[in-house]
Amino acid sequence: MAVPAAKSAGMQSLTIDLGARSYPIYIGSGLLAARKVLERHVPQTSCLIVTNTTVAPLYLSRLRQALAGRALAECVIEDGEQYKTLATASRIIDALASAQVHRDGAILALGGGVIGDVAGFAAACYQRGIGYLQLPTTLLAQVDSAVGGKTGVNHPAGKNLIGAFYQPLAVVSDLDTLTTLPDRELRAGLAEVIKYGLIADADFFAWLEGAMPRLVARDPEALATAIRRSCEMKAAVVSADERESGRRAILNFGHTFGHAIEAATGYGSWLHGEAVAVGMLQAAALSVRQGSLDSVSYTRIRALIAAAGLPSAPPALPVSEWLRLMRMDKKVAGNRLRLILLHGIGEAVISAEYDDAALEATLSGAA
Amino acid sequence: MAVPAAKSAGMQSLTIDLGARSYPIYIGSGLLAARKVLERHVPQTSCLIVTNTTVAPLYLSRLRQALAGRALAECVIEDGEQYKTLATASRIIDALASAQVHRDGAILALGGGVIGDVAGFAAACYQRGIGYLQLPTTLLAQVDSAVGGKTGVNHPAGKNLIGAFYQPLAVVSDLDTLTTLPDRELRAGLAEVIKYGLIADADFFAWLEGAMPRLVARDPEALATAIRRSCEMKAAVVSADERESGRRAILNFGHTFGHAIEAATGYGSWLHGEAVAVGMLQAAALSVRQGSLDSVSYTRIRALIAAAGLPSAPPALPVSEWLRLMRMDKKVAGNRLRLILLHGIGEAVISAEYDDAALEATLSGAA
Repeated sequence: MAVPAAKSAGMQSLTIDLGARSYPIYIGSGLLAARKVLERHVPQTSCLIVTNTTVAPLYLSRLRQALAGRALAECVIEDGEQYKTLATASRIIDALASAQVHRDGAILALGGGVIGDVAGFAAACYQRGIGYLQLPTTLLAQVDSAVGGKTGVNHPAGKNLIGAFYQPLAVVSDLDTLTTLPDRELRAGLAEVIKYGLIADADFFAWLEGAMPRLVARDPEALATAIRRSCEMKAAVVSADERESGRRAILNFGHTFGHAIEAATGYGSWLHGEAVAVGMLQAAALSVRQGSLDSVSYTRIRALIAAAGLPSAPPALPVSEWLRLMRMDKKVAGNRLRLILLHGIGEAVISAEYDDAALEATLSGAA
Repeated sequence: MAVPAAKSAGMQSLTIDLGARSYPIYIGSGLLAARKVLERHVPQTSCLIVTNTTVAPLYLSRLRQALAGRALAECVIEDGEQYKTLATASRIIDALASAQVHRDGAILALGGGVIGDVAGFAAACYQRGIGYLQLPTTLLAQVDSAVGGKTGVNHPAGKNLIGAFYQPLAVVSDLDTLTTLPDRELRAGLAEVIKYGLIADADFFAWLEGAMPRLVARDPEALATAIRRSCEMKAAVVSADERESGRRAILNFGHTFGHAIEAATGYGSWLHGEAVAVGMLQAAALSVRQGSLDSVSYTRIRALIAAAGLPSAPPALPVSEWLRLMRMDKKVAGNRLRLILLHGIGEAVISAEYDDAALEATLSGAA
């Protein structure tokens, strides 16, 4: 496809098409202050804002002003992946109960992926399900975690081991929030953007090769284009397979390796996007070994990940430990770990038919 | 309707019709030992049996024998409503992770309503949803809690405040388990059976008036009839309104009052069915005050509840405390508590249009 120029001014929107559970995604500048957009989706009864200690001082008052007059309680969580736990979900549920949020109330999840995932899970469980809005403030959340209804928390035995498929009422992505995002987090978000090109759209991948310097420099037009295209691709995949019974699993490209890295190093020391970047390279390396990806493509992938300022070297782990951690991921079927491999840039396949020796060689870091 | 004579021998089955999520209910003697029935629904991969310290010595080995050769881990919970908590759900999830149960595995919930609710909730959350079988061993669970997909745990602020709508793979009700049920629990189960007559079937209510002595004496034919008819009525309501957006709420007849009793007295000192029995009488009394139920019908209801050996007097609570606890129930819409009232025996309506003074008079126990 040809990537059209982004409109830098004005709001763009698209829809996740899931029948009765369809919802809009809004992308634009100043949306956290856009009363009209927010009012359309925030119920008029008691609601709870869930955010964290980093985001609250930056954007909470803006959101409160936009919704002045509404009954909004708040629950401010410590910042970090290590707080994406059942205990935090339980704390949010306590806050919902004290604020007497009823079945027709909602949660407003203001923050990055951790806030969206844990607040969405609390919304899924409280009173067997209340509404929630995703107000993502990181690139990773805007292109990935806030879209598609995967909610959850981590468990010592595995990432997102506890969770629900539960769709939000709307996703409101304010591009202004990316101006305060630390460099490292911006880059982690770019890992997921690169993923969409790799799994489904070779033209977008090629566009990214040219646009990467502008993306790293936070050019708003380039970012708007990258976010919209990423959301469009995710929307298409999720609409076709909401509960990941099949094709949706390709969105996990690089994630089985990446989750093992996060689990091995303790959640939080690697950013999710950093682990995914390395995982995508490992999956690409395995694809080369399997003969489904040529080495020129591999070199382009490696170069784009480097241009995004992302790491490429996995931590040193024994192969047996890699395999143990990867098996705790959710993609084991009939006792065989399934992996997502590339058949060239822009095409991913889910497969349990890889060569074990090739996998082990990849994990051991053999050249 | 005319209630046909139960077949005392052989298995009966009916279906909860929910499209792709439809599932069968089996009712009969010896079903926990019926390998063929169980094998049809238990996945061949690693599964986890969840049961409690009372049920395990009675029925666990029977179930294990029936499924000999399968990889079945177990998780045995303390017995009692006070263990229906997020902490117990978390413990079950730990057990699933250590047993390396994967997405294609399942939970076998062997026990009463607490086990079914908490194990079903753990199944809903683990890996964003694995399968589970309901193997109910109490009358209450066989006629109510195991059927319909409501799962959840209690919270200090309210009963079932945390949960999910999540349907089982199958419900297998072995009538033999009722032989070991304490009298008090049998009677608590009869409260829910009476409820079905009250909300939807005057003929069934009349049948119960005649059959109550045989039910209390555990006549298997009478019990089989009562369970099947209760499941049929629940199936019809749930099939029409799975997520309780409307009509399903009539199944909560007596429950808003009953939940307040349970919360006020600490979960576990009153059995759920006992609280519901008293709650049904309160709802009936309010219906009389509102003029929608005649006093002869009220007297019949009171007599049937007494014949089942169930309590009729609510605990003494200030009206303000009743109202506070009832508002924590999940049936508040637009800030107005909705109640389920009777328009004669066999017809229930959901209404927010009751008289506040009549409600307060009912709660204060005025004659």
